[in-house]
Amino acid sequence: MKVLIAQRNPIVGDLDGNRAKILESLNHGRKRKADIVLFSEMVLCGYPPRDLLFHRSFIDSMMIHLEHLVKASTGITAIVGMVRSNVERGERKLFNSAAVIHDGHLLGFQDKWLLPTYDLFNERRYFEPGKEMKIWDIRGKRVGITICEDIWQHSHHFTHVNYGRDPISALAECQIDLLLNLSASPYQMQQPYVRKNVCIKAASTLQCPILMCCQVGANDQIIFDGHSLYVDTKREVCHIGKGFVEDEIFVNLDDIKDVILCKNDVHTDLLSALILGVKDYFTKCSFKKALLGISGGIDSSLVAYIAAQALGPNNIIGISMPSYCTPMQSRNDAKEQAKRLQIQCIEIPIIHPFDSFLHLLDPYLQGEKREVAKENLQARIRGTILMALSNMFGYILLSTGNKSELAVGYSTLYGDMCGGVGVIGDVTKTQVYELCHHINKVANAEVILHTILQKPPSAELRPNQVDIDSLPPYDIVDRVLKEHVENYLSIDEISERYKIPYEQVIELIRRIYGAEYKRRQGPITLRTSRKSFGIGRYYPIVQRWF
Amino acid sequence: MKVLIAQRNPIVGDLDGNRAKILESLNHGRKRKADIVLFSEMVLCGYPPRDLLFHRSFIDSMMIHLEHLVKASTGITAIVGMVRSNVERGERKLFNSAAVIHDGHLLGFQDKWLLPTYDLFNERRYFEPGKEMKIWDIRGKRVGITICEDIWQHSHHFTHVNYGRDPISALAECQIDLLLNLSASPYQMQQPYVRKNVCIKAASTLQCPILMCCQVGANDQIIFDGHSLYVDTKREVCHIGKGFVEDEIFVNLDDIKDVILCKNDVHTDLLSALILGVKDYFTKCSFKKALLGISGGIDSSLVAYIAAQALGPNNIIGISMPSYCTPMQSRNDAKEQAKRLQIQCIEIPIIHPFDSFLHLLDPYLQGEKREVAKENLQARIRGTILMALSNMFGYILLSTGNKSELAVGYSTLYGDMCGGVGVIGDVTKTQVYELCHHINKVANAEVILHTILQKPPSAELRPNQVDIDSLPPYDIVDRVLKEHVENYLSIDEISERYKIPYEQVIELIRRIYGAEYKRRQGPITLRTSRKSFGIGRYYPIVQRWF
Repeated sequence: MKVLIAQRNPIVGDLDGNRAKILESLNHGRKRKADIVLFSEMVLCGYPPRDLLFHRSFIDSMMIHLEHLVKASTGITAIVGMVRSNVERGERKLFNSAAVIHDGHLLGFQDKWLLPTYDLFNERRYFEPGKEMKIWDIRGKRVGITICEDIWQHSHHFTHVNYGRDPISALAECQIDLLLNLSASPYQMQQPYVRKNVCIKAASTLQCPILMCCQVGANDQIIFDGHSLYVDTKREVCHIGKGFVEDEIFVNLDDIKDVILCKNDVHTDLLSALILGVKDYFTKCSFKKALLGISGGIDSSLVAYIAAQALGPNNIIGISMPSYCTPMQSRNDAKEQAKRLQIQCIEIPIIHPFDSFLHLLDPYLQGEKREVAKENLQARIRGTILMALSNMFGYILLSTGNKSELAVGYSTLYGDMCGGVGVIGDVTKTQVYELCHHINKVANAEVILHTILQKPPSAELRPNQVDIDSLPPYDIVDRVLKEHVENYLSIDEISERYKIPYEQVIELIRRIYGAEYKRRQGPITLRTSRKSFGIGRYYPIVQRWF
Repeated sequence: MKVLIAQRNPIVGDLDGNRAKILESLNHGRKRKADIVLFSEMVLCGYPPRDLLFHRSFIDSMMIHLEHLVKASTGITAIVGMVRSNVERGERKLFNSAAVIHDGHLLGFQDKWLLPTYDLFNERRYFEPGKEMKIWDIRGKRVGITICEDIWQHSHHFTHVNYGRDPISALAECQIDLLLNLSASPYQMQQPYVRKNVCIKAASTLQCPILMCCQVGANDQIIFDGHSLYVDTKREVCHIGKGFVEDEIFVNLDDIKDVILCKNDVHTDLLSALILGVKDYFTKCSFKKALLGISGGIDSSLVAYIAAQALGPNNIIGISMPSYCTPMQSRNDAKEQAKRLQIQCIEIPIIHPFDSFLHLLDPYLQGEKREVAKENLQARIRGTILMALSNMFGYILLSTGNKSELAVGYSTLYGDMCGGVGVIGDVTKTQVYELCHHINKVANAEVILHTILQKPPSAELRPNQVDIDSLPPYDIVDRVLKEHVENYLSIDEISERYKIPYEQVIELIRRIYGAEYKRRQGPITLRTSRKSFGIGRYYPIVQRWF
C-alpha cells in the first residue's frame, strides 16, 4: 500500500484554488503510483471557515466541487476533508467530514465524531457529531478514517474536556490495518511533539500504522505548521513532513525506509511560524509590501527581521519617528538596524505635529495627567503617520507590540497598537530576547544589533524613561502572565509557588484584566502559545471578578 | 401559591454585590409573604461570565456564596441561577444550574438541558447538558424548573438548531402544576413579543401557568431587557415585568388580577435598550462622564441624546472639531444641538495639526490617493484629540458610527472608530432617522434639530461631499445589509427579490466582507439586532469566498 500525504496550504473560502491544489496532488499521486492520496481536514474550504459555513451557497458549492473531484479520481483513492449537509435529524445541519473517493466513484463520508469547542475551536457552533465509524476496504486493507480531534481523546492529553466516546477505542474493536487522520491542528510551541505522541499512543492501541495529514499555512491568527506524520507500531519511529511549507510525503507501507526522527528546535519553529503567519496574511490577501515603525528597540527590530524574511527586504519600509525625547542612540540604532536587514528606512520626526497638538490642547492638559496625555499623543501621532502612508501606498502596517505589553496594557490604543497584524502579539518579552539571540547565533553574525539587545527596554515617551519605571522586570511579568493566563493559577498559587510578593501578583493580574478593552481593539495577533490574547480567550470587559 | 419574580441587574463577576441583591429580594419576598422568590439565569455571577468560568476559584466562590444564601433562606423558597461543578463523567466540568433552596436547606439543583451555541451564545464551551428533569414539591404543588433555552425548543422558533430533546415535552408527561423558567435572554428588536409567544406555547402544552424571570441590564455588548413574564393557560393573558429596569413582580397564582398585555413600542424599546447599554457600561465600570465628537450630523446628535439620557446632560461633553471643509452650518448645528440637549460643547478646530501633518507628509502624498489620505487624516486627528481629552479627564469616549457605515467600511479606523463603546453600531442609518423622528414626536418638540434631520448624510471630509457620492442610498445599503447579514440571502436572491441591480448588490457585499478587518478593531457595539457585527458574527479576515 502506497500513500501520498498531501500537506497543502488551502486558502479559506477559495474553493476553486483549493480544488486546483487537490487535483494537482492527485496527479502527483498517480505519477508516483500511490494507492491513496490523503488530504487534511477541510482542505476543500480551508480551516477555519467560521460563519461562511452558514451560507447555503457555500455548502452547495462544496458539493459541486466534490463532484468534479470524483470525476477526476480515475485510478486512485482520495480522502478529502470537506463539509457536508446533515439531512437527518440533529442539533446541527452540517458535518465536518472526509469524502472517500475511488476511481470515479464517491464511496461515502466519514464524519468527525469529536468536535472541539474550547480555546480557539468552536466546532459545536457548526457541526453535528458523526454517528458511525466506518471501516473502508481499500486494496484489500481494512482502513479507518478519523478527523483531527478524533485521535486526541485516546491519549488523555486534555484534562479540560472528556468526550463521552473515543473513536480509537471504537476502531480498536474492528481490527483495522491502517488508520488515516485528516488534521488541521494549529501550531503552538511544542505542538509538533505532542502530536507525535498522540499518534504513537493510538498506533500502540490499534496495533497498526497511522498516517496523519496536517494542514499547513496561516489563516488570520492561526498558524498551521504541517509536520504530517507517519507513525508505526514500533512506536518511536516516525516519518515526518516538512514544517511550515507545503509538502507531499510518499509513504510505501510495505517498504518503510526513510526514518526521520522529530528534532526540531523550538526557537527555529517559533520563528518559522511567525514568518509563515506574516507571509500568508500578505499573499492570501494579495498584499505585497509592509510598513512598520522602527524605534531602535528590540520589538520593532525583531518584527522587521520577520517581515523581511517573509516578504523580502525590498518589500519592507521602516519608519523612524523620533520625538523630543528620543535619544540619538535610538535614532542611529533604527537606521543601522534597517541597514543590517537591508530594508528601506525613512525618518519622519514628529516634533511639529506634536507641538501643534500640544498648543491646541494646552488649555486642557494639566498636572501629572498632562504627561500621560503627552505620552499617548506621541504614540498616536506615529500611528497617524503610519496609517497615512499605508493609505497612500497600500502598504500594510505591521504592529510591533509583544505579548507582555499587551497583557498589562503597556501600549497606546490607536497609537503603537495600530496595524493589520500584530506579528509578535503572542510572543512574550522574554521570548523576544530569546529569538533575537537565536537569530544572531544561527547566523553567527550581529543580525540584531548588540546595542539594541543590551539596552534596557523603554517606550521612550518621556526623557530617560525605562519600562521598569512602571512595570516589574519582564521575567516576573512573563511568569505571572503564563501562570495566570495559560494555566489559570490563582494569585495565591502564583505568589507561593514563585515567591513573588502577593501585592505584585495582584497588581499585574489587575492590569491584565484592566487592559481587556485595549486588546479587544488591537490587530489580530499571530497565535503561537497555548493561550493567545488574540483568539481563544474570551473575557468580559465589564466585570468585577478582578 | 405566591411568587416574587426578582428581575435583577447583576454585574458579571461581582459575586458579593449580586449576593446582596439576592438577599434583598429574599427579604422583599418574605415581607410580601411570597412562597417562592424566582431569580434569573446565573444571577449569582451575572450572564455571560465567559472565560471567568475556567477559574476554579470563581466556581468555588460561587459555592461559598450559595452556602450563605441557603442559611439566609429561612421561611422561604428561592430558585437561584448559578454555575456548579460537574463531578461526574462528562465532556464539560460545569453545569449551568438553578439551585433550589428552601428554609435553610439546599434541596438540589436543576441543570440546564439545552445549551445554545449559536449567534452570541457559546454555552457548549463551558457546560455539560443537564441529565435529569426533576419535579419539585413546593407547598404541595408539582413544580418544574427550566433554564432559558430549555423552553424555546418546544415552540420550534429556531430553524437553525434542533436539539435532540425537549424539556417541555418531558415535563408534559409529568403533569406539573407550575413551570418556572430562569432566563438571561438578550434583547433584540421584537424579542419581548417572541418570548411571550414561546411561553404561551409551553403553557398550552403543559396546561399550567409559567413564570419566567428574565435578567435585566447590559453586560458589554449584550443588553437584557427584563420583561419577566407570567403566562397562564388562557394563552393571551399575561403579566409582564417592566422593561429595561429592575423590577420585582408579585404574582398570586390563586388570585390573578393584574392583567397587563404586552404593548411596547419598538422604537421606545430600542431607545431604552441603547440608553441602558450606555448607562450600565458606565456604572458597572465606575465611570461617570462621557465624551463624544459632535459634528452637527444625525449620528452624533442621536448618540449625544442617548448619552444625556443615560448619564445626565451634565456628564456629557461634546467636542466639535471643524476642519477646512466643515460648512459653517454644521458648526452651528453642532453648537445648537448641544444646547438643545443641555450638554457642554467645546469647539477645537483641527486646522493646525492638519496643516502640520500635511506639511510633514507632503513629500509622500500624491495623486488621487492624497485625497483619501487627507480624509483619513482629519478623522484620525479628531480621534487623537478626543483620546487626549479622555486620557486627561478620565472621560470615556463614545463612538458614533452606525451599523450601515460599519457594514460597508465607510469609517476611519483609529479615527471616528475610536471609543470605548459604539453606541449605535448595531443601528442602521434608516433606524437612526426613525429614532430621531420618534424622539421628536414623543417629546412633541424639536429635540433633534430639523436642519440636522433634513440635510443629506455627509462625512464632511472633502468640500461639498455627501455619502451618496460613494455609496448607494441608505435604503438600499440597509436592505442588502439586513438580507445578507441577518438572513444569509445570496446575491442572486437579494437582487431578484428586491429588484436591486446585481452589480450593486455584489459591490455592497464585497464591501461588507472587505471591512471585516476594520470592524475587528472597532469598539464593542451595543447589540440590538438579530445579527450584530459586534458579537455573534465570526468571519475570517483573510478569505476568498467573497
